[in-house]
Amino acid sequence: MGFPDDLNDPQLRGRAVQAARGQTPFDLLITGGIVLDMVTSQFRRADVGVVGPLIASVHEPADDFAATQTLDATGQVIAPGFIDTHMHVESSMVTVADYAEAVVPRGVTTARWDPHELANVAGTAGLDYAVAEAQNVPLRLLPLMPTCVPSAPGYEQSGGDFTPAIVAQWLSRDDIHGAAELMTMQPLLEGDSRVRGIVQAGLDSGKPVCGHARGLVGADLNGFAAAGIETDHELTGAADLLAKLSAGFTIELRGSHPHLLPELAQALVDLGELPQTVTLCTDDVFPDDLLTKGGLDAVIRVLIACGLPTVWAYRAATLNAATRIGRMDLGLVAPGRRADLALLGDLDQVRVETTIIDGQIVAQDGQLCQAPPRAPVPEPLRHSMKIAPVTPEAFEVWARGPNARIATLCKPRFPQWGERILPVRDGRVDLPDDMIRMAIQNRHGAGLPMRVAFLEDWGTWRGAFASSVSHDSHNLTVFGRDPADMAAAADAVRKAGGGLAVASGGAVQAVLPLPIAGLMSTAPLSDLAHDFAALRATLDRLVDWEPPLLVFKALFGASLVCNAGPRLSDLGLVDVFEGILRESCVLEDGLS
Amino acid sequence: MGFPDDLNDPQLRGRAVQAARGQTPFDLLITGGIVLDMVTSQFRRADVGVVGPLIASVHEPADDFAATQTLDATGQVIAPGFIDTHMHVESSMVTVADYAEAVVPRGVTTARWDPHELANVAGTAGLDYAVAEAQNVPLRLLPLMPTCVPSAPGYEQSGGDFTPAIVAQWLSRDDIHGAAELMTMQPLLEGDSRVRGIVQAGLDSGKPVCGHARGLVGADLNGFAAAGIETDHELTGAADLLAKLSAGFTIELRGSHPHLLPELAQALVDLGELPQTVTLCTDDVFPDDLLTKGGLDAVIRVLIACGLPTVWAYRAATLNAATRIGRMDLGLVAPGRRADLALLGDLDQVRVETTIIDGQIVAQDGQLCQAPPRAPVPEPLRHSMKIAPVTPEAFEVWARGPNARIATLCKPRFPQWGERILPVRDGRVDLPDDMIRMAIQNRHGAGLPMRVAFLEDWGTWRGAFASSVSHDSHNLTVFGRDPADMAAAADAVRKAGGGLAVASGGAVQAVLPLPIAGLMSTAPLSDLAHDFAALRATLDRLVDWEPPLLVFKALFGASLVCNAGPRLSDLGLVDVFEGILRESCVLEDGLS
Repeated sequence: MGFPDDLNDPQLRGRAVQAARGQTPFDLLITGGIVLDMVTSQFRRADVGVVGPLIASVHEPADDFAATQTLDATGQVIAPGFIDTHMHVESSMVTVADYAEAVVPRGVTTARWDPHELANVAGTAGLDYAVAEAQNVPLRLLPLMPTCVPSAPGYEQSGGDFTPAIVAQWLSRDDIHGAAELMTMQPLLEGDSRVRGIVQAGLDSGKPVCGHARGLVGADLNGFAAAGIETDHELTGAADLLAKLSAGFTIELRGSHPHLLPELAQALVDLGELPQTVTLCTDDVFPDDLLTKGGLDAVIRVLIACGLPTVWAYRAATLNAATRIGRMDLGLVAPGRRADLALLGDLDQVRVETTIIDGQIVAQDGQLCQAPPRAPVPEPLRHSMKIAPVTPEAFEVWARGPNARIATLCKPRFPQWGERILPVRDGRVDLPDDMIRMAIQNRHGAGLPMRVAFLEDWGTWRGAFASSVSHDSHNLTVFGRDPADMAAAADAVRKAGGGLAVASGGAVQAVLPLPIAGLMSTAPLSDLAHDFAALRATLDRLVDWEPPLLVFKALFGASLVCNAGPRLSDLGLVDVFEGILRESCVLEDGLS
Repeated sequence: MGFPDDLNDPQLRGRAVQAARGQTPFDLLITGGIVLDMVTSQFRRADVGVVGPLIASVHEPADDFAATQTLDATGQVIAPGFIDTHMHVESSMVTVADYAEAVVPRGVTTARWDPHELANVAGTAGLDYAVAEAQNVPLRLLPLMPTCVPSAPGYEQSGGDFTPAIVAQWLSRDDIHGAAELMTMQPLLEGDSRVRGIVQAGLDSGKPVCGHARGLVGADLNGFAAAGIETDHELTGAADLLAKLSAGFTIELRGSHPHLLPELAQALVDLGELPQTVTLCTDDVFPDDLLTKGGLDAVIRVLIACGLPTVWAYRAATLNAATRIGRMDLGLVAPGRRADLALLGDLDQVRVETTIIDGQIVAQDGQLCQAPPRAPVPEPLRHSMKIAPVTPEAFEVWARGPNARIATLCKPRFPQWGERILPVRDGRVDLPDDMIRMAIQNRHGAGLPMRVAFLEDWGTWRGAFASSVSHDSHNLTVFGRDPADMAAAADAVRKAGGGLAVASGGAVQAVLPLPIAGLMSTAPLSDLAHDFAALRATLDRLVDWEPPLLVFKALFGASLVCNAGPRLSDLGLVDVFEGILRESCVLEDGLS
């Protein structure tokens, strides 16, 4: 426990004590508001006196306190600033500055950032960038050390290779706040030495070791906890939530899978009490959602709308989060704590009027008071598409005729192996009408060929989609039927230095450049959100799928090879849980 | 956060993962029990598999797990071991070994010990003894660094003098787990440099800084929190509880003031939820209570009887406590946590059948499995009564006649100043019929004379009581009317090398030797408890007071000069809050 060093300054504490007792003025006095006490769930009229970054006093309104600056909060609720316990800035495709500009006016004051995507593209150069950017914004961004770079070693290649030694070295830094979500569940359970070494580095650091326990149940869930993993946000339903709470995991209820939230909220209501181990996180927020719905404030809002008691939603986002990330300076409107505050005009709508961080008014009326500096993007992150021009031939599956037996991937999100015997024409396997192609090419300089898979149950496509955003290795990933469309989209992404593209009729229909590591835009969020939504709409017109948003999201996660089931990576068709790696989907060819 | 080092052994974690997955046997498998989940408040049938000091698995009963040792817990509830967040072993007047023998079979597995009394008698030699003894018992005793040695510098003298530098030096040790209750409230609020330096040493250590916020309200309570103090156990009622919860204090609800518990329990019930900042502590337990009622188990039992929901009482004693003392290894029956367990035959009666610490069965059926070693008591602690033989003259108040104006102390526990004009005979001030004498002499080698005060509202005395246990400086303290009785009792304590004594008719009626620092007995608890109760009964026959127990307890606390109001110390009559120190109670003499 203990407070961060900046709050242990004896002059600061001495001045706070004096101000609390009316012997010296506050730096800032917030008057007329109603304090939301996250400990007792009670609301009370109280003024809040601030000295430097500290709350010095929370007292009944009185006229006998002086202050250098006064803020009238009449009619507003004073809550602790919101704490996002797990997120990736990169998922919003914006710079850190733009991310802060979007969420700080909405009351988010702290976010634990796993710069997993930057690290998987640019290795330690990506971390350097993340840590430097985190210090440039009026938001308490707490970088964690990515633990899965790549997330399935031996089954994929990314732009980084974080060994246990590298993880340990970074975890020893004061500006790295823990080990980020460990997704390599199966290797850990099986005793893989690299993954065990990475977890050991986390345990040895004395900092939190975060997890990703997708689909783990029973003995495997016990084993994952026994290994020392603390957190999970990969819930699949109410039973999974309860099992993981009982197994002692800190839960990061996430907003990125809103279809689950009604069920999860109801499960908590049924418990009758909010467990102190329930926190909230955003995980991944698309740019247009970030602009229109917000960050962690949106998760609070949705949970309240789902029937979670209002105060519980706030407690999960504040006191619970602070405790579970080991920050006793945060999460309370109480003397001696850090003055990170959200002043709300409407509690259920989570309408924040003013945000205060470290005792400074940093945002009012939806705007940051001061725009954060935009530093130039370092060179290594601007040239991340290390591939040659892409041609249509790259998307063919080559085999000997007249027929070939092909391994296929069925069902988006929860993939299963399939098999088809297909005709071969001119050495190319025929793509059946009910299937599409998925293709991945390493873009991190490995010099590997395009890998191609045939997918079932992915809707009807009249065009192609290419992306350099593709979890977790962010290799160039392309979906479509027609090799010409796929090549057009893929090459557009290459030329843009990374990004998203849609093509049909052999021509590019939309491109969204993401020149920072092929993940993030340099454009302002409002432009980016517009272009992102437009590109998605373009794709929606070319693809028939249900429901649109989830399947569009599934495109970015289709290559998440660390999860259970068969997937395509830059090395081929793989199944990490089963230990399978096939360079080609052709199981047998030259069949009659 | 993070786990303690012993749980970060990679072989241990690896074996735990394998055992959880059925690939290697557990060291211990507890079958047939019902697990009490402190996160969800739910009970469920589950077997608990233990590997070394770790819980490896909590799973549905199944036959397919092997184990080296099996424990049948059919019909029992498996709860986390109980955590006492604030206590003084010395208050039970027993050795650490006897304390462990008393409480471990009752389910107490961890206790945060402030060896404040040993330190105030024997300085750092007292700490050395405490830390060494703590390591010799099958109980996780976590010594804290006493912060108030003495507790009112300048107003009393004890056997130690802990400057900020000494506090900082000890806090840097791995076997010192935080800064213990800071009782010097007023000096801290007034900016006293010594007290601020001690708090600073606590903050700088990054370890918890505990408090004692007796009677603090409003601006002073805000100031105490703003100074960085985290905890309080000095509650005076429901309003005080709520104010301190709202001010962010971790509450250590204590059993030593049971008359308050019904009101405090009701206040929590009225909140509708148990705040996660509520923990339980014993603080001070008399020997006979320790023997017959127990330690922290008694606090749980009383709170349940007071109407606190059963699961809340357990959660306060386990998960809440673990979180607030920064021990994520404790407080849960969950995989990856430490196997500190209490197996209960009756939940509401807190009847513990088996206690497990670090995965070892340490107590069953009310007995430790192995008696802890009794190390010899170091020499400095055996010769703590550094005073000459006491004579009746020492208890006189000397003045010039015919009358003198005397400052008196009114009301036990919440003392106030009084004043009387009294006749003087042969140079001695006449003690009025409605008053008694209180006298204190430094026993730590300061060579000071006996200080004498006249007390009002302390009942009717026909004898005297002397004690070397007298908070917080533990100087020789004597109560009575007749100087001959007082001298007899005081000298009996001196001759015993410290202890308690009762005298009447000029003769000693009962003596309880406490030869370890004048605080603790070398006798077994059962003998000590009997003798203690007998001595109290002897005193009860000589004194008419209401209610007996609380006033007897008030004798030990009458000299607690760090609290508000006038008190007697070895330096004279003092009032720390008002800055008063008078060597004599004679305000004016030679009056006509």
